[in-house]
Amino acid sequence: MSLATQIRQMAQEAKAAARQVAVLSSTVKNQALAAMARALEEQRQLIQAENQKDIAAAQQQGYPAAFIDRLTLSDKVINAMVQGLQDVINLPDPVGAVTSMWRRPNGLLVGRQRIPLGVIGFIYESRPNVTVDAAALCLKSGNAVILKGGKEAIHSNLVLSRLMGEALVQAGVPATAVQVIPTTEREAVVELLKLDDYVDIIIPRGGEGLIRFVAENSRIPVLKHYKGVCHIFVDEAADLDMAETICFNAKVQRPGVCNAMETLLIHAAVAPAFVPRMFARFREAGVELRGCPQTVALDAQVKPATAEDWGYEFLDLILAVKIVPDLEAALDHIAQYSSNHTEAIVTQNYARAQRFLNEVDSSVVLVNASTRFNDGGELGLGAEIGINTSKLHAFGPMGLEELTTTKFIVFGSGQIRG
Amino acid sequence: MSLATQIRQMAQEAKAAARQVAVLSSTVKNQALAAMARALEEQRQLIQAENQKDIAAAQQQGYPAAFIDRLTLSDKVINAMVQGLQDVINLPDPVGAVTSMWRRPNGLLVGRQRIPLGVIGFIYESRPNVTVDAAALCLKSGNAVILKGGKEAIHSNLVLSRLMGEALVQAGVPATAVQVIPTTEREAVVELLKLDDYVDIIIPRGGEGLIRFVAENSRIPVLKHYKGVCHIFVDEAADLDMAETICFNAKVQRPGVCNAMETLLIHAAVAPAFVPRMFARFREAGVELRGCPQTVALDAQVKPATAEDWGYEFLDLILAVKIVPDLEAALDHIAQYSSNHTEAIVTQNYARAQRFLNEVDSSVVLVNASTRFNDGGELGLGAEIGINTSKLHAFGPMGLEELTTTKFIVFGSGQIRG
Repeated sequence: MSLATQIRQMAQEAKAAARQVAVLSSTVKNQALAAMARALEEQRQLIQAENQKDIAAAQQQGYPAAFIDRLTLSDKVINAMVQGLQDVINLPDPVGAVTSMWRRPNGLLVGRQRIPLGVIGFIYESRPNVTVDAAALCLKSGNAVILKGGKEAIHSNLVLSRLMGEALVQAGVPATAVQVIPTTEREAVVELLKLDDYVDIIIPRGGEGLIRFVAENSRIPVLKHYKGVCHIFVDEAADLDMAETICFNAKVQRPGVCNAMETLLIHAAVAPAFVPRMFARFREAGVELRGCPQTVALDAQVKPATAEDWGYEFLDLILAVKIVPDLEAALDHIAQYSSNHTEAIVTQNYARAQRFLNEVDSSVVLVNASTRFNDGGELGLGAEIGINTSKLHAFGPMGLEELTTTKFIVFGSGQIRG
Repeated sequence: MSLATQIRQMAQEAKAAARQVAVLSSTVKNQALAAMARALEEQRQLIQAENQKDIAAAQQQGYPAAFIDRLTLSDKVINAMVQGLQDVINLPDPVGAVTSMWRRPNGLLVGRQRIPLGVIGFIYESRPNVTVDAAALCLKSGNAVILKGGKEAIHSNLVLSRLMGEALVQAGVPATAVQVIPTTEREAVVELLKLDDYVDIIIPRGGEGLIRFVAENSRIPVLKHYKGVCHIFVDEAADLDMAETICFNAKVQRPGVCNAMETLLIHAAVAPAFVPRMFARFREAGVELRGCPQTVALDAQVKPATAEDWGYEFLDLILAVKIVPDLEAALDHIAQYSSNHTEAIVTQNYARAQRFLNEVDSSVVLVNASTRFNDGGELGLGAEIGINTSKLHAFGPMGLEELTTTKFIVFGSGQIRG
């Protein structure tokens, strides 16, 4: 069987499974998730033995330690996967909810009801714990899922796939509701992206290169973000203690993630007071600063920023800093350089806080809080399968509800159109 | 200036305008719509003179009467356009509404707020009244729009574009918020579909060929439906008088539209009673019937259906008819052949009505009402820019709210992540 035929057959089976999964009760879905959790507990040794094959291969190929760390299913990671399944069991089931209903003048009762999307294609990095997390979210939201993890995690993903399949069958759910593509070839992704007759949505996660490749090759709608170039604007009316705490957290707490701050904008009126204390704190933490000429004028140790530094996602302890004359200039800079991901203002001024919230076109806009809060769990969605910075369907972090859509249901009593 | 450069420049200007339109008050948007309505009234002769050029050219090229009719801006059509603008003025502004807001344990107040999509590309048939209708919906929902109508309507669209631009400027809105592509070349569409840096969404309307062309060539997300293959299932517990009325309306009232019935499924238990009266009524109206063998056995005048008749959108007085043993078989047929557009059941049985509503995967699912109600106006959305049968963003008819998305707004007091 050719790879194309194999992927097509998986997609067809996923579509057939989706029809069944869409109408499962929450009870049955939760039983399947609980069976998965038991399987992870009971088959811990088997899982770790398969995972060890992936780790050994990655070590031999000289992958960096951080990569090996993300690949490793330690006891702690498996415990977190089990807890993750329990968390998803405890989340409310979004399917079936009628979000609104109204009566028309002709007596028709019209409502919008939440339904699953159908078949989700999920393409992600070499983190085998994500295989279970993503499967759980897709199943709980009534969708079938086809998973394609990074090639370095293939042994881990295949054993997890087999265990999840067995757990599904135990609960009376077709095993084809959760499928892992059993090959490491990238061509498998290309084939999957053509199957718009069977797959409703593609969610890619990982590096910008992979995501661009998916977006450019997909006939299926893609929910994605390329990068997070997050800005914080410290306004002239900022509480400078608060500004220092927030900016430090946003840059330093976890610099390698998409919701970390990449550019700091400072109102000129507070720059002389704010720059010395803030930069001292950043330097202590090893942050490299690259500034506009005004910033350099205030602090000669700051490296002059180049044109490429604005709108750049460093994902590292590097920060671009610009001093701006007013809110207007900050908004203009953000409109030009932001990735529509996350931006924050620090201010005690009511009108400027409102204006920032209103005018910044990003998926999460914050007043007096760290950009690091753009996360489904932190914002209260219960969980997160990814963050979307395109405006379609779900702008921002996507939890269970964002894996559903609504259809119109209409209760009539013989109405016809005149 | 090359065509590609010209289209890119229009898209850049639209994106700049979108930033301004997004934050306009409802009052200003309504003033612009009112100015458009006045311009249509006052410049009726000018509009009709330009429209006459399109009509004459179309007549000379031998277009059919129905085509010329859709192209013609008669007094009646212009009156309807003016009324349409007034209707949009009267619709509530969706922008800015906070659809929900909650407090997190750390004190953060998190809400979802409706915002415009940004720049909409709207590609449509040679119906110049749609130029104004679509512009009004996009403007009221805070979006900029680039309009590309059918080439036969170019003179009409250009004069309407000029008048709308003047009306926008009168109200203090940039004229570039509503732009008509001033060329008839299809290459202009190809260029537009590449500009995913500036255009957020493409809505194509028209024949299946155009829509497939757009979907296959677009880097920008597309909201669309290819066709409406609508089914009605007459259950064994149907009120047969009601079934006859609904089926007749769904097939005959306007057979050329996407929400007309294309396939009738009849429960075997009521077929002997229902077929004679229903078919007599259809024949009186000139409907050609194509049936499964059981249908032909009940009525020898029925033409045997071929495999191609199932799932076919006739858009004409032709109907495929199948007798099925039970609801299960009806659901299977619909799952195999429907276009996810609109399906209805006629029944007095509670459990089967609920099951049909629950299991049919279409954008509008009705009990005891005509499929013809799949329409934004009829369902109570106030207006409609199109119908989407993909699951993303808005499944079904799209009104003003469906031209928006939500962003997260977060009110903090210094929170950081631990």
